[in-house]
Amino acid sequence: MSAEDEAARLRRLQAALGKIGYGGDYNPEQWPEDVWSEDLELMREAGVDLITLGVFGWAQVEPEPGRYSFDLFDRIIDRLHSAEVQLSLATMTASPPAWLSASHPEMLPQRADGTRLWHGARQSYCPSSPVYRDHAVRLVEQLAARYGEHPALAVWHVGNEYGVHVAECYCDVSALDFRRWLQERYATVDGLNEAWSTDFWSQRYGSFEQVLPPRSAPTFCNPAQQLDFARFSSDAMLACCRAEIEVLRRVTPRVPVTTNFCGLWKPVDYWAWAPHLDLVSVDSYPDPGDPESHIEAAFTYDLLRSLKGGRPWLLMEQAPSAVNWRTRNVVKAPGEMRQGSWQAVARGADAVMFFQWRQSRGGAEKWHSGMVPHVGADSRGFREVKALGAELAAHPQLAGSRVQADVAIVMDWPNWWALELDSHPSVDVTMREALLAHYTPLFEAGVTCDVVPSTGNLSNYRLVVVPNLYLTTADAARNLSDYVHGGGHLVVSCFSGIVDDCDRVHLGGYLGPLRSVVGARVEEWLPLQEHQSLKVQLEGRLGDGACEATVWSELVIPSTAAVVGAFADGHLAGSAALLHHEFGAGTCWYIGTRLDRAGMRQVIEAALAEAGVAPVLADLPAGVEATARVAEDGTRAVFLLNRRPEPVTVGLPDSTTLTLDPRGVAVHYTHPTPEGL
Amino acid sequence: MSAEDEAARLRRLQAALGKIGYGGDYNPEQWPEDVWSEDLELMREAGVDLITLGVFGWAQVEPEPGRYSFDLFDRIIDRLHSAEVQLSLATMTASPPAWLSASHPEMLPQRADGTRLWHGARQSYCPSSPVYRDHAVRLVEQLAARYGEHPALAVWHVGNEYGVHVAECYCDVSALDFRRWLQERYATVDGLNEAWSTDFWSQRYGSFEQVLPPRSAPTFCNPAQQLDFARFSSDAMLACCRAEIEVLRRVTPRVPVTTNFCGLWKPVDYWAWAPHLDLVSVDSYPDPGDPESHIEAAFTYDLLRSLKGGRPWLLMEQAPSAVNWRTRNVVKAPGEMRQGSWQAVARGADAVMFFQWRQSRGGAEKWHSGMVPHVGADSRGFREVKALGAELAAHPQLAGSRVQADVAIVMDWPNWWALELDSHPSVDVTMREALLAHYTPLFEAGVTCDVVPSTGNLSNYRLVVVPNLYLTTADAARNLSDYVHGGGHLVVSCFSGIVDDCDRVHLGGYLGPLRSVVGARVEEWLPLQEHQSLKVQLEGRLGDGACEATVWSELVIPSTAAVVGAFADGHLAGSAALLHHEFGAGTCWYIGTRLDRAGMRQVIEAALAEAGVAPVLADLPAGVEATARVAEDGTRAVFLLNRRPEPVTVGLPDSTTLTLDPRGVAVHYTHPTPEGL
Amino acid sequence: MSAEDEAARLRRLQAALGKIGYGGDYNPEQWPEDVWSEDLELMREAGVDLITLGVFGWAQVEPEPGRYSFDLFDRIIDRLHSAEVQLSLATMTASPPAWLSASHPEMLPQRADGTRLWHGARQSYCPSSPVYRDHAVRLVEQLAARYGEHPALAVWHVGNEYGVHVAECYCDVSALDFRRWLQERYATVDGLNEAWSTDFWSQRYGSFEQVLPPRSAPTFCNPAQQLDFARFSSDAMLACCRAEIEVLRRVTPRVPVTTNFCGLWKPVDYWAWAPHLDLVSVDSYPDPGDPESHIEAAFTYDLLRSLKGGRPWLLMEQAPSAVNWRTRNVVKAPGEMRQGSWQAVARGADAVMFFQWRQSRGGAEKWHSGMVPHVGADSRGFREVKALGAELAAHPQLAGSRVQADVAIVMDWPNWWALELDSHPSVDVTMREALLAHYTPLFEAGVTCDVVPSTGNLSNYRLVVVPNLYLTTADAARNLSDYVHGGGHLVVSCFSGIVDDCDRVHLGGYLGPLRSVVGARVEEWLPLQEHQSLKVQLEGRLGDGACEATVWSELVIPSTAAVVGAFADGHLAGSAALLHHEFGAGTCWYIGTRLDRAGMRQVIEAALAEAGVAPVLADLPAGVEATARVAEDGTRAVFLLNRRPEPVTVGLPDSTTLTLDPRGVAVHYTHPTPEGL
Repeated sequence: MSAEDEAARLRRLQAALGKIGYGGDYNPEQWPEDVWSEDLELMREAGVDLITLGVFGWAQVEPEPGRYSFDLFDRIIDRLHSAEVQLSLATMTASPPAWLSASHPEMLPQRADGTRLWHGARQSYCPSSPVYRDHAVRLVEQLAARYGEHPALAVWHVGNEYGVHVAECYCDVSALDFRRWLQERYATVDGLNEAWSTDFWSQRYGSFEQVLPPRSAPTFCNPAQQLDFARFSSDAMLACCRAEIEVLRRVTPRVPVTTNFCGLWKPVDYWAWAPHLDLVSVDSYPDPGDPESHIEAAFTYDLLRSLKGGRPWLLMEQAPSAVNWRTRNVVKAPGEMRQGSWQAVARGADAVMFFQWRQSRGGAEKWHSGMVPHVGADSRGFREVKALGAELAAHPQLAGSRVQADVAIVMDWPNWWALELDSHPSVDVTMREALLAHYTPLFEAGVTCDVVPSTGNLSNYRLVVVPNLYLTTADAARNLSDYVHGGGHLVVSCFSGIVDDCDRVHLGGYLGPLRSVVGARVEEWLPLQEHQSLKVQLEGRLGDGACEATVWSELVIPSTAAVVGAFADGHLAGSAALLHHEFGAGTCWYIGTRLDRAGMRQVIEAALAEAGVAPVLADLPAGVEATARVAEDGTRAVFLLNRRPEPVTVGLPDSTTLTLDPRGVAVHYTHPTPEGL
Repeated sequence: MSAEDEAARLRRLQAALGKIGYGGDYNPEQWPEDVWSEDLELMREAGVDLITLGVFGWAQVEPEPGRYSFDLFDRIIDRLHSAEVQLSLATMTASPPAWLSASHPEMLPQRADGTRLWHGARQSYCPSSPVYRDHAVRLVEQLAARYGEHPALAVWHVGNEYGVHVAECYCDVSALDFRRWLQERYATVDGLNEAWSTDFWSQRYGSFEQVLPPRSAPTFCNPAQQLDFARFSSDAMLACCRAEIEVLRRVTPRVPVTTNFCGLWKPVDYWAWAPHLDLVSVDSYPDPGDPESHIEAAFTYDLLRSLKGGRPWLLMEQAPSAVNWRTRNVVKAPGEMRQGSWQAVARGADAVMFFQWRQSRGGAEKWHSGMVPHVGADSRGFREVKALGAELAAHPQLAGSRVQADVAIVMDWPNWWALELDSHPSVDVTMREALLAHYTPLFEAGVTCDVVPSTGNLSNYRLVVVPNLYLTTADAARNLSDYVHGGGHLVVSCFSGIVDDCDRVHLGGYLGPLRSVVGARVEEWLPLQEHQSLKVQLEGRLGDGACEATVWSELVIPSTAAVVGAFADGHLAGSAALLHHEFGAGTCWYIGTRLDRAGMRQVIEAALAEAGVAPVLADLPAGVEATARVAEDGTRAVFLLNRRPEPVTVGLPDSTTLTLDPRGVAVHYTHPTPEGL
Repeated sequence: MSAEDEAARLRRLQAALGKIGYGGDYNPEQWPEDVWSEDLELMREAGVDLITLGVFGWAQVEPEPGRYSFDLFDRIIDRLHSAEVQLSLATMTASPPAWLSASHPEMLPQRADGTRLWHGARQSYCPSSPVYRDHAVRLVEQLAARYGEHPALAVWHVGNEYGVHVAECYCDVSALDFRRWLQERYATVDGLNEAWSTDFWSQRYGSFEQVLPPRSAPTFCNPAQQLDFARFSSDAMLACCRAEIEVLRRVTPRVPVTTNFCGLWKPVDYWAWAPHLDLVSVDSYPDPGDPESHIEAAFTYDLLRSLKGGRPWLLMEQAPSAVNWRTRNVVKAPGEMRQGSWQAVARGADAVMFFQWRQSRGGAEKWHSGMVPHVGADSRGFREVKALGAELAAHPQLAGSRVQADVAIVMDWPNWWALELDSHPSVDVTMREALLAHYTPLFEAGVTCDVVPSTGNLSNYRLVVVPNLYLTTADAARNLSDYVHGGGHLVVSCFSGIVDDCDRVHLGGYLGPLRSVVGARVEEWLPLQEHQSLKVQLEGRLGDGACEATVWSELVIPSTAAVVGAFADGHLAGSAALLHHEFGAGTCWYIGTRLDRAGMRQVIEAALAEAGVAPVLADLPAGVEATARVAEDGTRAVFLLNRRPEPVTVGLPDSTTLTLDPRGVAVHYTHPTPEGL
């Protein structure tokens, strides 16, 4: 695949839509055809122009092995096309039919304890199964041949939510595939022994044939084995996805491909997957019962945008209101769905879509809300869907515009996997918590962030924030150090620079290869007990305040860095907690604990000020989210979202003001001054 | 089986006892024969006249396949007969012997995750196993032939506590039986696909051979599959029970049969089982550590009585004091066992029995109390047993008398199964909690209830209460609507009228087929978070008070009903919470949330008043339970149980009063006025 | 093995060391050889003279079946010997290599639910596996032949932490071995049926072939089966250990053998194992996050000392600072490691060792602290290690000296197993909690205790304390009764004297065979609810105070005992809770509940006073631990450990005083008055 082809495919999609796409998953096979007519009428009313079709169509189109039956899909695709609805057409491989596992039970996934997962739900397949892959590829060949030239086809939707239920399989077939993967990675078994530190606990392998997935064992499995199994599992799913893409590229080279990621999702390494896709998509389900879930949503959208270098992405699924899989499924309040949809657009989405168009009558997701609820179109739910459709249609110029960011947050999947391995100093240091602890003060300051891998290009950013980069490769350390040395500004937090890519400790003082850029080493860690906290006394350029720290403390030994905060309690009283280091032309901040929200805000705001980063809007009131997209023609759209329970007035750059209702949303455009003035 | 035969068998049993039966499970095989002599002497002292024998006798009487050895039971049965003790003789099939699973491991039950449950405890059999069933039937043939004519035999006790440990089995044998059952139910695989909504998640089956029990799967199994598996599992156990009954009916047509149900027990559909039994029995283990466990006991007894149309039933097991299977096993305080025993009689029991006569010396239940404790007869425990025996003997006229009720509570097993399926709006809506929330105000008002299935005959009741009838069939909806239309009074609570018998939603507005009788539809649900509550403002005929609501709220759209309560908090503030609907000649109340205890009492008391239902005794003091039984000759016995820690005085209909001690019990008789006066 | 040989082997070890041994586990195979040179230099600096080598060496020395490769160990052993470091040489069998389970998967352990535990961690073997045992013995033959005469070899370290991860296996191989063990124990299947009370629940066996381990079953497994399986499992591991010892005794008869026990560890019956070892060792990991973990450590050390009749033992492993396997791994504060090490010496340890010398770079234990931390020798950690080495070297005379105790606590493994079986009156009565409840007041009073089995020799003790001796054999009851009758003083607590060695109840009143010595029987138990407490009013010789009781109460019927405390609340108000009984020439106290800490102190102090037991030092301040060791020449060393956060002054027997810093340690010597003066 060349980048040029990719660009051409994307232009084709953008042209087909001509605006922010709007729609949802549509499962007409669950309904009698007389309901289809109402569907098309209501889609028209709601301004729907993009539909995901066929995600669970396999059993329908291949009712028995090798016999294909496309009648139903032929009919509905033609009707959708007549209604001017474009298709995100699924490859239908997300849930294999009953006949496949009935005749090939060895393709069912197996848990670490050896128990099977059977047919009866969805995604019942071992990702390494050649049986599954062969049948899936054969189906995709059929679909590509049949619908590849259909004028309604806008984008291929490969699989569905890879890994959401079965992200890893421990069966004998997977063991074989894991060995093959290891052999490719390490060439010799001694390479593997070295990488996995197998002299520990007498685990040394005599041949690849002796190696297993990290199945249930008497105690903690080898952590490098666990880490490689996480890598392998992401790759095994990617191999399924790539096998389908290979068919689509060959048969339908002009149609772009995507797959829908699952929010902030640990098992799938998005950085490794994104290059294989023309554009990325995400399913986003912030919990309406959690008053801060919009912050994780914002981070997720920033990540999605960053995966393809700032290019627009698709919000492939969100819930119109409640979901069905939490213990208590809270509904979205009036206006909440609208605001959440605009939040995605504000951070770069070119489509706003839902699961699903019509709420199912039966099955495990019938209590998941739909754009058309069980009660029908005469409902609060559908009225809000219709209103949003009209609203989005009024902003066609947003499609294709870009978000700019001066700040980046570093996030790697191998680090996530390694950081959360068992037998660590503390169970409290987790990736999601760390990311949000560092992202929240940026979010609250109205500063837009990108997300970058630790070896990514940092040259476009004034400030780079590195939360808990436990796994730090030599390349990553060099990348971060060079960035600072060349004038960049860096914030690094505790438990970073600890191990290499095989979970082997960088010896000689923690922070390892980050010691020079941080200007310190760490001698030992003192994780805090649950509910324990310590006081941190600020000093130097952070002023003379104080804040609270939880989760973690450590004995930091500064070399060339200045202390800007010290522990005021416990064994470490008087010892450094926060550092500031001038390194080359730049600076590096270090946070040797987990500060509370106010403390994190102080450090991040000092770093932003030093780096000269400005928010999207100055003097933004608390509780208002502001982001901007800029179109090719220079038109700048500022998005304002009010999360306060009362109206709020926001000052705009042109000195006008704008008042937002509770849960209000506004888009304010600034057009470029024409050239020559 | 004709109803006449059944009546004859029951008359025979009643004649044999001539009073309220008294006794317990007796396991003489655990004791040397010199202990038997003491047993018989102590039984005489305690007034014991009915004993359950042989529940765990299989390994004793069939020590190896096909070799029967009845000597021990011959001897003890003759000795019991000489001592004038009647037998509830077990069919001995509840716990197969070690040799059966050792030679046929495929008859061991299997969990959803595929792991086996082995010999070493009890009930280690797959209910669908033909190996188990054949061996069981062969044993019952032997028992029926040997003891069927024995003069001590009062009633056959088939199996024991069906499903208490193994209520469902997921093995391949069960899979075959499940398929056979499904084929009978649906005839064609397309029927099944339609019923199970298998177009969802690509679950469609090509043949019955592809169908499995709802084994461990990647995520939520198909809910209709789960629901049918619950139906099937109850039926599979019933098939075991019926196979034994078939032998007994044939060989000993004059001996009544029963089996002992396990309290309020989800896996066994009592309505489906009861027609196959001559009389029903129950094992009842209210927790002495729970100050409200007598309310669930009362409901259970009302249910037992209702299963055979008001006919007396047997309290087959209760604990003399502590059990052994809770985390902390609280003993019954002095007087508590007596009061609990009278509670059963007061609600229609014709026998008061215990597990077990003599506390075991070894085994898993040795810390379960016995009528004769480890310490021996010189103990508080045995003294209370003896006193109760004497007391029951003083009321022979109670045997066979009947309880009357003007109110019924609707309870269906398929609704219970469906209501508690996974992936629902809230985990907090459960059947037991719902039943008790609606039953408690009736209990506290001193009003006696029957229990009816949703399609049962309602014509005898002034008020019918319907807690959370999530699964409402068209027949049930018709039955309830007709009842109200014809002048009945109904109370319906939230999350009712939602799905059909295949867990498919009634579309077009929740309440579905109950919309007309309720006079409203429901548009969406807003389940509450844990610990969250809302205020409900009463209005209209409920006055102007307020109460608290938890668990659930919903958007109710009244059509013809009047609002008698509205939410005062949250998104729904001002919207209807409680309705009152005049429909035909009757009325229907609707409760669109879960009210607190005081709120439930207000609604239920208003409904009782409107329906003209009177309690057993007017002006009954709080903490006193009152019920009545009426004999064939018209004698009315009023039972009074004081649960307050101080004495309490109760006014009687004849204007006399009666004072009850703490934990006191009284029976007050009123004889019919002789004819002609 | 004769006792003389054992004594000779121990003299040899003691001579080789000449002082308190100091060192740790050393795993040179994990490091390149250039690190070895630094290791030897740092060992010299730290005063290390004893190293455990080869615990995880199997995969290294036998890289494929039957091919042995000792080069690495040859080299390091010679270098250690040159550096005057002695060896605790492991038999290397603790963690079988990958090739063994790859070619013999049937040697992998199996859980009760039938799932396997695979290679990838450590200890992946079924203890009953002949495959494992044969391969292990073959390896030990090789090691004994190669290193048996090496001058550096001080002691054989057999296996490692038996049972720490796999203490029992439920596979078919284990089932066979279990049957063999049962046949030896019971001779006939009827003997087993009698012992296991199999007439209960129809569990009777027709042959040993029908018997299984207590695998997952529908409900509680037979408790006697569970108890025997615990006995068998300890014996199966012991058989592995003995198979290795048999080789070592034969090939290297002059070298002592030990194995390292795991603290207070339920699955291994130390009393049964100790006779097979020349000396005992322990791994001790008190939680630095628990301010009372030193009390359990003290009890563990007293137990270790008691296992071989007061002979010195080895502290084989402790953590220099944090471990890696708790949820949050707290570090040891400055001075805490030193104090903990001296605590072991103060209670009879002749070596202070660590896991491990050099903190691992990879593997599951890399976050477990090491004597040489990741950061290197320039660290708080290594400085403390060095200081302690120097300090221990300054007290060579302590090696071989003995601790004396006037008090003993009774502890049996079968009682532990039986006490914590399921389906008991209360889950709150557990062994560890019971032991510490009774030990803590002795610890706080500065009184040194031994630990004895219930049938052990009690004649050396003034006071014997019996916590919850649920399983009381006739021999044990006779032993305790004879002890009191002959003038001893006994404290017995509730739920004692309940069952025989097959978990069968002693009938006729609880306390069973202890009724005469206690002077009472118990009629019934009233376990308390969680968080429930009762008041106990003291009386008689305990004065007129009161204390709180939790967990348990019971109806005690005194016969010849005097009541010295009564329940003041609940059903039992006014009934006896505490007894004092003069029996023969001695006395017995009985505690019919679980008193709070103050209450336990009152009873234990009254019993100490009556028995005439004096603490190690009179007037010891609270928070100071005092113990003593006496050398063969009569020199008495008193150890003082201050756990208070401030300095504390202690008065010594010679009327001088001594001031201890916070976390301070002191050793004060008193030399015997020379003979003839």
